[in-house]
Amino acid sequence: MTLVLGIEEQQEILDMQSVLGALEILYSEEANGRALNRQRSDTIVTNQTGIYGLKSMDGVVPIFDVGAVRINSDVITWPEINGTKRRVKVPAAPGNRWVGLILLFSVSTGEPLAIFPDGFIQKMRVGGTSGLGVKYMSRTDSKVLGIIGSGWQASAQLSAACQVRDFEKAYIYSPTRDNLEKFIAEMSPDFEIPLIATVGADEVVEKADVLLCATNSLKPVIDGTKIRPGQHLGSIKPCEFDSITYQSVDRLAIHTRNTKPLHEVMDTVDMEELADDQGWSAFQGAINWDEVPTIAQIIAGKQIGRKRDNEITCFVNNLGMGIQFAAVGAKVLELARAKGVGHELPTEWFTQSVHP
Amino acid sequence: MTLVLGIEEQQEILDMQSVLGALEILYSEEANGRALNRQRSDTIVTNQTGIYGLKSMDGVVPIFDVGAVRINSDVITWPEINGTKRRVKVPAAPGNRWVGLILLFSVSTGEPLAIFPDGFIQKMRVGGTSGLGVKYMSRTDSKVLGIIGSGWQASAQLSAACQVRDFEKAYIYSPTRDNLEKFIAEMSPDFEIPLIATVGADEVVEKADVLLCATNSLKPVIDGTKIRPGQHLGSIKPCEFDSITYQSVDRLAIHTRNTKPLHEVMDTVDMEELADDQGWSAFQGAINWDEVPTIAQIIAGKQIGRKRDNEITCFVNNLGMGIQFAAVGAKVLELARAKGVGHELPTEWFTQSVHP
Repeated sequence: MTLVLGIEEQQEILDMQSVLGALEILYSEEANGRALNRQRSDTIVTNQTGIYGLKSMDGVVPIFDVGAVRINSDVITWPEINGTKRRVKVPAAPGNRWVGLILLFSVSTGEPLAIFPDGFIQKMRVGGTSGLGVKYMSRTDSKVLGIIGSGWQASAQLSAACQVRDFEKAYIYSPTRDNLEKFIAEMSPDFEIPLIATVGADEVVEKADVLLCATNSLKPVIDGTKIRPGQHLGSIKPCEFDSITYQSVDRLAIHTRNTKPLHEVMDTVDMEELADDQGWSAFQGAINWDEVPTIAQIIAGKQIGRKRDNEITCFVNNLGMGIQFAAVGAKVLELARAKGVGHELPTEWFTQSVHP
Repeated sequence: MTLVLGIEEQQEILDMQSVLGALEILYSEEANGRALNRQRSDTIVTNQTGIYGLKSMDGVVPIFDVGAVRINSDVITWPEINGTKRRVKVPAAPGNRWVGLILLFSVSTGEPLAIFPDGFIQKMRVGGTSGLGVKYMSRTDSKVLGIIGSGWQASAQLSAACQVRDFEKAYIYSPTRDNLEKFIAEMSPDFEIPLIATVGADEVVEKADVLLCATNSLKPVIDGTKIRPGQHLGSIKPCEFDSITYQSVDRLAIHTRNTKPLHEVMDTVDMEELADDQGWSAFQGAINWDEVPTIAQIIAGKQIGRKRDNEITCFVNNLGMGIQFAAVGAKVLELARAKGVGHELPTEWFTQSVHP
């Protein structure tokens, strides 16, 4: 049978600890050449609304007996919100819904194992990978967490960070006050530590031992003059940091080298906006693409995450990889099968008796 | 609703004429920059049996309001059959089945429109494209068709060629006599012209005005000294022709320039076999990758398919494109909806209320 599993069912069965466990094994496999990734591609055209992007990435992880294809079918616009141009995916599918899918296949038999919407796994794998950045690069005595952003991604960053360090409190900032307050109200019941709203990003930067940015901004969201020795910084988008931040970092790691630097923003309608954008150029200037360590190398012990307490470390979760969806997807599938949730469809609907 | 449609249902509703019509519009769009392709990727690992390959290609064709992802999840071995190393896909999925899928999405809304097994569309789009090669490059007075091969692909080559030219008869050769006789027995009822078995490839080459090769051989299947002025040659794999053939061709066209020449055979277990292989190197030697016309350019009138009656023309259907699956898939979907066939699944199973 081939499993179809909704987002709500995935949320019930998959916790961050399982994600961190699956990703930690994955990165060790990757660093040892036993997991294979096909870089994300973006096939982009204009449509009536703005832009249509068909995006896909593949990954094969033999240890989990799974190959994954992750597909996004996005209708995209670029409005200006709070003075900043932001990338907005429009929920244009019936019922005002978004479209992202993960397909899982067996490496042993080729069979289609599962088809899931991707949204929950998407944030869990981004959060989990950033969490492993915290685990392998931040000081073990980090006590204060800082989060910039209050969206879907921010919740997973918060959750992952709290799994790997014993934080005493978390300061959070988001430019839209309503979103910030809503986020804190929604998240607080799930955390034992106080989640504290701030009135500006500077306060978070100044107080945090570990600072994680999780926004959809195309411009830097923190002021690099405020960071201090010993901090660990994390970003889900290279442009969230400014050039002073990148210049101050002692130890930088990224998620994958297998990318063109501007790849992620090719669907902007306004390339001039990007030309002005100091975050992207700062990141490119800071990176030696041939030598920058990846988080997988650090997890596998082939590179150093942190050497001294007063170093500023930084993990830029620069581009997603299909192998993340293979690893976390395999975990979801395992949990779903164990608990008997989801719709089981006949595998023969998705296979064939003719030689393809 | 999202449509799931089996191979048998597709075979009932989709005929070659519809495929040729959809592909002809597609290539005209492509040549005018209105269809976008993401080159096939092959993510290949070893498994217990031999090789596991997760292959995908994407294509977006706004005129049909469709984006397509085509995925193959293949277990592959390379046995030697009749003295020739051949690539064999093992039907390792439950019920001894193969795994290939096409997913269709709407360019307007992003929604998942359909999920199909790919095997039938696969051969129809290869056959249809080769058929357009015949239509735009062969002499209009071609009377004798020749086919080398008697497999799944050969049937579509035969069918497409007969749609675009008034052939009087077809000579067919396959090295395995049983397969050849079975093919002719199965196909004859569907064709008004005689299908004639031959005892060697030379006979087919000598008699054919239009010669189409559709084999899974890694070595040349015809002897280039036997071809003659005025013929049109077609191949579904560049290595089917030898160096003398390529040297004799006056006008060569390919399917896509967007490929690395050896891309298709990277899953061989025996690269030495390829190093010896004159077909691949002959093809590479014959091609000026920057200038060789594509079939799309010929269909759109931007390049010439045939100038004189005594030219030898040749269309090498060198690598598939995702846009073919978008165009033919959209046609299948249209026909299925009109006739009410297939399983309709709730689209919300494949969409989400969370921002991905």
